[in-house]
Amino acid sequence: MKSYREELWFETKTRRGYINITDRVETAVKKSGIREGLCLVNPMHITASVYVNDDEQGLIRDYDAFLERLVPHEPISNYRHNETGEDNGDAHIKRQVMGREAVVAITAGKLDFGPWEQIFYAEFDGRRRKRVLIKIIGE
Amino acid sequence: MKSYREELWFETKTRRGYINITDRVETAVKKSGIREGLCLVNPMHITASVYVNDDEQGLIRDYDAFLERLVPHEPISNYRHNETGEDNGDAHIKRQVMGREAVVAITAGKLDFGPWEQIFYAEFDGRRRKRVLIKIIGE
Amino acid sequence: MKSYREELWFETKTRRGYINITDRVETAVKKSGIREGLCLVNPMHITASVYVNDDEQGLIRDYDAFLERLVPHEPISNYRHNETGEDNGDAHIKRQVMGREAVVAITAGKLDFGPWEQIFYAEFDGRRRKRVLIKIIGE
Repeated sequence: MKSYREELWFETKTRRGYINITDRVETAVKKSGIREGLCLVNPMHITASVYVNDDEQGLIRDYDAFLERLVPHEPISNYRHNETGEDNGDAHIKRQVMGREAVVAITAGKLDFGPWEQIFYAEFDGRRRKRVLIKIIGE
Repeated sequence: MKSYREELWFETKTRRGYINITDRVETAVKKSGIREGLCLVNPMHITASVYVNDDEQGLIRDYDAFLERLVPHEPISNYRHNETGEDNGDAHIKRQVMGREAVVAITAGKLDFGPWEQIFYAEFDGRRRKRVLIKIIGE
Repeated sequence: MKSYREELWFETKTRRGYINITDRVETAVKKSGIREGLCLVNPMHITASVYVNDDEQGLIRDYDAFLERLVPHEPISNYRHNETGEDNGDAHIKRQVMGREAVVAITAGKLDFGPWEQIFYAEFDGRRRKRVLIKIIGE
């Protein structure tokens, strides 16, 4: 069994942002030399998500509107977590709704995806440097 | 390390549908010959979910009512994604709420499940042929 | 390839509860002897979640308030599932929103976590003994 590990770094300019990271994960799969296995991709932070869906700008706006309607950022005082001095209580909840991680099959040295599957990093508390972990195991 | 890959095909007659696929995944595990490992099950499409829960018709109706209340299919014009000519903006969001994939342990050649765990394929934009990927790694 | 399996048992005194299980998973990783691999953690029940987020009491109260607002436990008659004689229809839905499982990378014999990532068992239908499965594969 082989394993491979890589970190990606991101810093969004806005509080919330959605970045297609498929190419960077595909590159990691190539570097790993693993032909058959599983690839785990997850943020190393708890106010961000990695998810698989379509790279379409209207959809990304729909996700953002849905999450902000369901878990509004303001008023800050709505969240007990913010009594610690934080203002990201909403971001911790948005991340749970969108999920933490994606596990993707690797087959014949590639991400084993249907035609529209793309891996996204979703940031809900940005404007600082944050990491995504890629861990691949297989052979 | 061994690996095994299989695709399942589905076509629901209605826009939304919930199909118990546990037996088909269990059959794939047997065919794989893998005794200890991990089994990833995910749709290869982005308007469907694979999830683990109870096979009880009342619950399935509760899921469907909950999702439709939270993210109604209509009006179509509620979703920016639908400006592309699609009518499945809601389906992309419902799939995020229910999750993309299930990762299930394999122990002694079987899905390592508690008594009520069942794997479901949830379709949110059906009436066409769609695929589920099973990828198993282990020994 | 090596594999390791362990069950954890929990019984919360209240219907809903949130337990940090990171130390117990870390101990399982050590016992496994696996240095590089993947660790799957999931409840063996369908009214509970395993998720990764912050160990902060305000946040846990925010999660609980959010879930209870989105999917109230009462009235019991709101849920078709409860026509079977159960009263946990809400718990099956809450578990889907929070997710079923966490898959965590293992690197150099440890859970490969960012500074604030902690593994939680979230119970939505407690007051009885329930299990969490840890399955680790790697080398």
